Amino acid sequence: MIFIGIDGSGPGLRVRVEAEDGVGLSSATGPAVSLTLGTGKAWQMVLETLSAALKPLGQATETLTDARIVLALPGLNLPAQQQLFTALNPLPGIIWTCPDSYAALVGGLGDQPGSVILLGAGSVLAARRADGTWYEIGGWGFPTGDEGSAAWLGQQLVTLTQRALDGRQPWEPLTRLCYGLWGGAWDAFFEQVATATQADYAALAAPIAEMAAAEDALAQLLLTEAGREVGAMAAAADPDARLPLALTGPLAPVLAPYLPPEATARLIAPEGTALDGALRLARAPEPPPAARGRRLVG
Amino acid sequence: MIFIGIDGSGPGLRVRVEAEDGVGLSSATGPAVSLTLGTGKAWQMVLETLSAALKPLGQATETLTDARIVLALPGLNLPAQQQLFTALNPLPGIIWTCPDSYAALVGGLGDQPGSVILLGAGSVLAARRADGTWYEIGGWGFPTGDEGSAAWLGQQLVTLTQRALDGRQPWEPLTRLCYGLWGGAWDAFFEQVATATQADYAALAAPIAEMAAAEDALAQLLLTEAGREVGAMAAAADPDARLPLALTGPLAPVLAPYLPPEATARLIAPEGTALDGALRLARAPEPPPAARGRRLVG
Repeated sequence: MIFIGIDGSGPGLRVRVEAEDGVGLSSATGPAVSLTLGTGKAWQMVLETLSAALKPLGQATETLTDARIVLALPGLNLPAQQQLFTALNPLPGIIWTCPDSYAALVGGLGDQPGSVILLGAGSVLAARRADGTWYEIGGWGFPTGDEGSAAWLGQQLVTLTQRALDGRQPWEPLTRLCYGLWGGAWDAFFEQVATATQADYAALAAPIAEMAAAEDALAQLLLTEAGREVGAMAAAADPDARLPLALTGPLAPVLAPYLPPEATARLIAPEGTALDGALRLARAPEPPPAARGRRLVG
Repeated sequence: MIFIGIDGSGPGLRVRVEAEDGVGLSSATGPAVSLTLGTGKAWQMVLETLSAALKPLGQATETLTDARIVLALPGLNLPAQQQLFTALNPLPGIIWTCPDSYAALVGGLGDQPGSVILLGAGSVLAARRADGTWYEIGGWGFPTGDEGSAAWLGQQLVTLTQRALDGRQPWEPLTRLCYGLWGGAWDAFFEQVATATQADYAALAAPIAEMAAAEDALAQLLLTEAGREVGAMAAAADPDARLPLALTGPLAPVLAPYLPPEATARLIAPEGTALDGALRLARAPEPPPAARGRRLVG
């Protein structure tokens, strides 16, 4: 028996294979997998990265029967999506699937109650109650949700750049930088805006973070607004501010200094990543809970 | 010789055919045409609605040589798009094309200097300077631009509904209405959000306007914010607030009462619509100016 965790919470897929005793056997990374590509294409991409991780072990996906696999992907928090995706499993054995937010929760807090906020291209909070049940806050996706995420930051910046371009507000160093990155000419910028994807917006978070580190006022303002959004998610999950809060994902170190004080006071370092969570779930006696981890209010 | 105006600025295509002496001969309406459908599909849809308008006259598009046609569509303000689209003209004669904002400017103000703001699913300001040249402000498109438009209003409301759904803010009558309109159940709402188009967001503007008319505070707040955005476009076009300003498009009557005072003071009734503008341009001796009507600032 081997244990395999597959995590799609970041900008690319990550696979890790472990032996029964917990020793790491191999790992691989691949391109980002999104269910919006279609279920067949998403499975194909998962299989390719999994194959790469199995190759050094002399294993192939077609004969992978003696394995416990947990696959965590964004988008699996919609029950219909999760059922469809899981039903089309092309592997010979059973594969457990769960939303990436759930893997981040288990990786970050284990079984403890509290919240983990996954901050990457998107953003979502996963919380565990004292009774063990869980729920999500945020994570509604681009372009109306995922507040405070990398794509959300990029969206704000592109809107500000448009406003500078036609004189609704003055140019700033950060909007000039964005204009340059997206073509540096009116036609090129318009074309880029017309075809931009969530990933294109998310790619602007790195230059925003760099400018903020260099004390740029607008970049710091955007990160402060993102931090406020993250704080609003944390406050909704735990209005009494009593339970631990962990940030994970590529944007976590960028936004941690920008959280409001109530959230900062609850902040703990996560035990591990969403990939660690997927491996922990692979070793659990039962499959992860059904996709729906939503707290319905009102 | 007949004159034909074709206007795609609203929720559907509008065609009007006039005789030399200005008498209306026929008209037709069709589905909305967007260049994002692809150039071939967009032309096909234009031809279908044009055919419907020509039928009562015993004319067919294939033999339409003795006509002057102006076709105004959103998206034609990107020069590469306009060149590609115009080059693929399947009609036997010449057809002049222009951005819908330019047709709205000519329809609203004729040759006078001033600004016309086209308020529909999207939003864009077209302004004429005293020297006759023109430029646009806004109109960068969904989801980062088109501030104050119907799609923009719908976007704001969906974000607020998401926040209410997971407890980041209290429910309000308007967010409950939105939740009901978009499925009334968590899964259905999530699915609708995941697949929503600009038109889906724009369709929420009508219920927002109805609730505002019924004194709903949140609906009035959203319209006030939209009015402020429209005011920012007007102020950027004319910082000294000296030239006339006209609003046109389906959202114009909804937003007019919500403009800031500086914009209200400049407000005049438009002479006509974008369709009137297209017909006026069809009678002009020269084709409309090239697509690019952008004022580059800084």
